[in-house]
Amino acid sequence: MSAVNVPVVESALLQIADKRQIKTGRERLAEMSPQCGFGELGTCCRTCYMGPCRIDPFGDGPKTGVCGITPDAMVARNLLRETVGGAASHVGHARHVLLTLRDALDKKVPYEIKGESKVLALAKVFDVPTEGRDVVAICRDLVDIALEDFGRQDELPNNWLSKRAPKIEQQLWKDLGLMYSNPHNEIETAMHASSMGNDADPMSLMMRVLKMSLIDGWTGLALAVDLQDILFGIPEIGETEAAVGVLEANSVNVATHGHNPVLSEKILYWAERMNEEAIAAGAERINVVGVCCTGNELSMRHGVKLAAHNSQSELILVTGAVDAMVVDIQCIWPQLAQVAKCFDTAFITTDPMVRIPDARHIPFEPQHADESAREIVGAAIEAFRRRRGKPVDIPQLKSKAIVGLSLEAIVGILSKVDPVDPLGPVIDNVANGNIFGFAGIVGCSSIRFRDGAMTEEMVKHLLAQNVLVVTTGCTAHILGQAGFLTGEATNLYCGEGLKAVLSALGEAAGLDGPLPPVWHMGACVDNSRVVDLLVGVAARLGVKVGQLPAVGSAPELVQEKAISIGGSFLAMGVSCHIAPAPRILGSPMVTQLLTSDLSDVTGAVVRVEVQAERAAQWMVEHIAKKRDALGLITTGVR
Amino acid sequence: MSAVNVPVVESALLQIADKRQIKTGRERLAEMSPQCGFGELGTCCRTCYMGPCRIDPFGDGPKTGVCGITPDAMVARNLLRETVGGAASHVGHARHVLLTLRDALDKKVPYEIKGESKVLALAKVFDVPTEGRDVVAICRDLVDIALEDFGRQDELPNNWLSKRAPKIEQQLWKDLGLMYSNPHNEIETAMHASSMGNDADPMSLMMRVLKMSLIDGWTGLALAVDLQDILFGIPEIGETEAAVGVLEANSVNVATHGHNPVLSEKILYWAERMNEEAIAAGAERINVVGVCCTGNELSMRHGVKLAAHNSQSELILVTGAVDAMVVDIQCIWPQLAQVAKCFDTAFITTDPMVRIPDARHIPFEPQHADESAREIVGAAIEAFRRRRGKPVDIPQLKSKAIVGLSLEAIVGILSKVDPVDPLGPVIDNVANGNIFGFAGIVGCSSIRFRDGAMTEEMVKHLLAQNVLVVTTGCTAHILGQAGFLTGEATNLYCGEGLKAVLSALGEAAGLDGPLPPVWHMGACVDNSRVVDLLVGVAARLGVKVGQLPAVGSAPELVQEKAISIGGSFLAMGVSCHIAPAPRILGSPMVTQLLTSDLSDVTGAVVRVEVQAERAAQWMVEHIAKKRDALGLITTGVR
Repeated sequence: MSAVNVPVVESALLQIADKRQIKTGRERLAEMSPQCGFGELGTCCRTCYMGPCRIDPFGDGPKTGVCGITPDAMVARNLLRETVGGAASHVGHARHVLLTLRDALDKKVPYEIKGESKVLALAKVFDVPTEGRDVVAICRDLVDIALEDFGRQDELPNNWLSKRAPKIEQQLWKDLGLMYSNPHNEIETAMHASSMGNDADPMSLMMRVLKMSLIDGWTGLALAVDLQDILFGIPEIGETEAAVGVLEANSVNVATHGHNPVLSEKILYWAERMNEEAIAAGAERINVVGVCCTGNELSMRHGVKLAAHNSQSELILVTGAVDAMVVDIQCIWPQLAQVAKCFDTAFITTDPMVRIPDARHIPFEPQHADESAREIVGAAIEAFRRRRGKPVDIPQLKSKAIVGLSLEAIVGILSKVDPVDPLGPVIDNVANGNIFGFAGIVGCSSIRFRDGAMTEEMVKHLLAQNVLVVTTGCTAHILGQAGFLTGEATNLYCGEGLKAVLSALGEAAGLDGPLPPVWHMGACVDNSRVVDLLVGVAARLGVKVGQLPAVGSAPELVQEKAISIGGSFLAMGVSCHIAPAPRILGSPMVTQLLTSDLSDVTGAVVRVEVQAERAAQWMVEHIAKKRDALGLITTGVR
Repeated sequence: MSAVNVPVVESALLQIADKRQIKTGRERLAEMSPQCGFGELGTCCRTCYMGPCRIDPFGDGPKTGVCGITPDAMVARNLLRETVGGAASHVGHARHVLLTLRDALDKKVPYEIKGESKVLALAKVFDVPTEGRDVVAICRDLVDIALEDFGRQDELPNNWLSKRAPKIEQQLWKDLGLMYSNPHNEIETAMHASSMGNDADPMSLMMRVLKMSLIDGWTGLALAVDLQDILFGIPEIGETEAAVGVLEANSVNVATHGHNPVLSEKILYWAERMNEEAIAAGAERINVVGVCCTGNELSMRHGVKLAAHNSQSELILVTGAVDAMVVDIQCIWPQLAQVAKCFDTAFITTDPMVRIPDARHIPFEPQHADESAREIVGAAIEAFRRRRGKPVDIPQLKSKAIVGLSLEAIVGILSKVDPVDPLGPVIDNVANGNIFGFAGIVGCSSIRFRDGAMTEEMVKHLLAQNVLVVTTGCTAHILGQAGFLTGEATNLYCGEGLKAVLSALGEAAGLDGPLPPVWHMGACVDNSRVVDLLVGVAARLGVKVGQLPAVGSAPELVQEKAISIGGSFLAMGVSCHIAPAPRILGSPMVTQLLTSDLSDVTGAVVRVEVQAERAAQWMVEHIAKKRDALGLITTGVR
């Protein structure tokens, strides 16, 4: 607990937990250690009942599983199932939003189109006629195009992939056999192929990993984000605050946690309308705050404050100040229900897919969204009534944060500099080296790396070397809490070139100072916005995405989803740093492929590095190589 | 290797392997032991990168995973993913057959309708008009009904479940929330729900296990079998031979291995037409033999001989007499390619989903079925050319076997006794105790239990107590090799009551002796025929399937598919014996549910028992309880 460089927020909350004798994930992780080496290396196979088999790649024991499967295939097969877990999660999220939108158009659910401009933009992408047509009719066509992908058994290319993804990369995917038709067929096939006695060729399995990752990227992330923008509006740049200090002792604190804004949008809507009830209960107001990706969704559309990233989700409960934590899907630690029980906190699950022992379950379905949301906010007010007057322990720590830099918002700012060629100034500054390159630092927050501030340290090194950082997910929370999403951070951390660019852009945008050096692009699904940004820059330069001086990083990997998102970047040709190591090290072939040979396939590699400075240095060197290949100035500009 | 009671076939083949210094699965299993106890108990979790977590339910270590997940939820979540692996395999198989049939109707692939009577029978089930209509048109309607299930996003009940399954059980499934709509939605949702931070309620997860099992049963097994009967004809009773002795030293031996008859039917077709080429190469003929479930498919439609069950698949290669082993999908040990390399055997993979290092891959797609099958048979003839004159080592062991007792075939036989009420004689004999009950002994063959002849020993005990046995899958091979699929076995093993019934039926059917005491109903997918038989008997008696004096058993569990098939029987109310234990023992809740409390939910329980006599005794006692509940004579009839 007393590791060096623990972020102040965690440090403060862990002290409270300690005082209250509440065990946290850090203790559970310590108790679990040493963790299973076979599992960590990926050479554990439980796929059939001749096993479990496990292979020590360094020992004299068995060299294959009982069926004869090699460690290479075992690792690749396990990785495939992780990727399916990730892709199925994002496809499920996207499909839920799709069906909600479909039903909204038919007025069967109380949602409406708030992002008309997104409808029109997508209509252009999908060749949907717009002339003289009602936005609902246009949107219905888009819904049908998306639904067609799920029903098709014709093996024709998936609409959302083939029309939405860049053509130049599609040619590569075609050549590699990675284009898909119906994502559900592929999920079924991947689970089938990875059951015992099917695919045993590690290269074939790794191609399945990449295909499944593309499904995550296009039928998961892109589809979800496109339709969420239609339903809830395209995010706009705005200011909020981040960290536990956004909780208010005398307000009804409602923490929304999860990923799918279909719930949290309604919670926020009703919280605003039930303020009087809260006041009647003795509260100052209802304070809706955001945890994890649902937090990002609400912050970038409504400026809702960011209370906690995932690995803090149990820690903010120990303040005793959270009246209700209402969760939708994904990344919900079952432990939360146990911590909530120690307080007056109402821990509320809502999705049929997320049942947790000792949680209160208030079913939330889009058709009864308003009733359910009212009930949930009511439960929070009730919990406040019980809490009122009791001491709470809220560390007064928070940071300002600029959020909501969707691609549209970014282009909006840049248009103030050059309305005709908005990306022009960025390109010019990349060319002259003021912007040395781009890094997408995304993904989870892991208790393995929080003590040591892995993500923050990496970003400091990158900014000092003029690398512009974009961020999503829990990483965005981490960087928000640490103050990186502010103009002040530009002055504090950036090299001279990047500082100059961001200051000029801030001035042009009419901001009171420079743009932040880390751009908050949203939740984990919003990694599709990062892709769109890269695609836009690449198109402007007339190069492939993989040729850009850009690199990705998931510095605190926790979730299967991060594996499949990472894979989607690799398929685009964007190299990625990751920590800790994916479960591949037991396979020489998979390790060699991902860390080296993949560069001959998609142009990207994976770099595992658990030390922040070394990770950042690799990223800078990788960017330098890309700059060299493009003939851009490299030396002397950092 | 020298365990007691090793079946003679294995014993003979293991001696050859030993002589030729070829390592077999038994040695690999021994080297792998002791196997991981956490894995065996189900309390190993690799779902996220805070883990791997593992819980010793008997120790003082951690009581939950790092995220707080309990051993109960961990076990249930792992079991759910196993069930998805199984269900996805069978759904994938069924969907492949469905698309082949669709394309056959459009004459895009060289297959045709051979089971017209099945088309008409299904038309009745699905309310498809037949009056004055062409069989192709009727069949097209059936195909559309099946395709609708995969495309639907309307949450209406799945056609193949709601129209094909018995109504009385459907009411239970409705009450339990187990009815499903689109099986692909459910596979996606199950993978999503089982990723970290979603479903953590063991009961909710176990209901998902049952739902996924229903998908296996109705969109996997039943759909596959129904459409295979349309394409390849309804199996009819016939005689064949089983065990390695069906290989012929001087013939081109082509072993077809896998599950999907779309390939093997074409192999057989072309083998018959390329006999002259084989003779020209110096062979007596082409001898197509069957391994695993593809073997069952060919044997029950064409009398093809059964060469080996799954755990003998590597052993028959050591004879040196297999010229080609051609595989489609599922249960293909990667080791086969390595063993084949020691001989002139052409080991040929065909499915894009089954790639194996060191195998020859000849892509087989329905549209080029004839060309590919010709190429494969040609490769076998070539391999024979290389082998010709070299010594082979074929143990002269084989048994006669009556196969192909589809429900239609059974009704056909019984109709000779009572054309008006075919099931009547069976019912009467159940009532008077001549047939004490039914046991479906199905599933895999496991090297864990082959030395000890687990399945054979169980069946001896059951038959002695007048329990009629039906069988499918590798279990059918085991019982076929041991001589249980013959009329002689009735005289050898059956109690007096059962012997009398089977003798009378054999006589009525015009057979030269009694019916066999173990009825071969086909491959693993043909467990739907077992269900149809039970449904038929239950309907005739006016009771629920779960009330029948019937029990299931998977005595040598290997595959995820066996887990989901078993679950589909549990959902029908049919209790099941299983060995070894599923990976549930680390969860008190899941263990309690499956072994006891489930009887209050679906009426069925699971019994784990690794000793053959005790397993049989439990099954007999279970049947006795069901007889008691129905008011049937129980004591004194065994």
